[in-house]
Amino acid sequence: MIIKQASQVPLKPVAKGIGIRWLLAPQDGTPNYAMRIIEIQAGIVFKPHHHPYEHEIYVLSGQGVVTNPQGDVAEMKPGTVLLIQPDEPHGYRNTGDTVLQFICIIPNPK
Amino acid sequence: MIIKQASQVPLKPVAKGIGIRWLLAPQDGTPNYAMRIIEIQAGIVFKPHHHPYEHEIYVLSGQGVVTNPQGDVAEMKPGTVLLIQPDEPHGYRNTGDTVLQFICIIPNPK
Repeated sequence: MIIKQASQVPLKPVAKGIGIRWLLAPQDGTPNYAMRIIEIQAGIVFKPHHHPYEHEIYVLSGQGVVTNPQGDVAEMKPGTVLLIQPDEPHGYRNTGDTVLQFICIIPNPK
Repeated sequence: MIIKQASQVPLKPVAKGIGIRWLLAPQDGTPNYAMRIIEIQAGIVFKPHHHPYEHEIYVLSGQGVVTNPQGDVAEMKPGTVLLIQPDEPHGYRNTGDTVLQFICIIPNPK
């Protein structure tokens, strides 16, 4: 059994105002899928993009919207759950004044 | 894209004081893995058990311990992350006075 506290997992920057904590990853021995926290700072836009694998998301804190190339799709707030399918375009925008923080599960990176 | 609010997903009882919300399941079109919330009421013990698939867990609220047949293994509190491997015995005990609530990801049930 592996036991961690999320706050002790380093926040790795991926772009200005956007970071990721790899809570459980293949180096921990995850058999099939990885658990991350994504953190997006107030005012930051994570532009729509896509990739050939799904996201399963649970919003922990903050306020935002999930977007696609056509515009805003839905509000994100604590307890919001999203299934983004493989190849489905998606982006995020923090619309609050605190960090938008969500769990995001992906298949194990190869 | 599927969008839900976790609180609107029904809590299905699985045993006295223990319930589960299937946030994202195969009927939602999950390609590989399912996202659930497990809720264990104050004072309730979920005895050690095992199954041939892993759990990836993130504690949302409450206080508890994760156990195995030999006893207590670790504290569970908000932000605690657990990887329980396939066939690894595990149980839970709510040691607080509020519901112990955690996200638990499993491979898609067959």
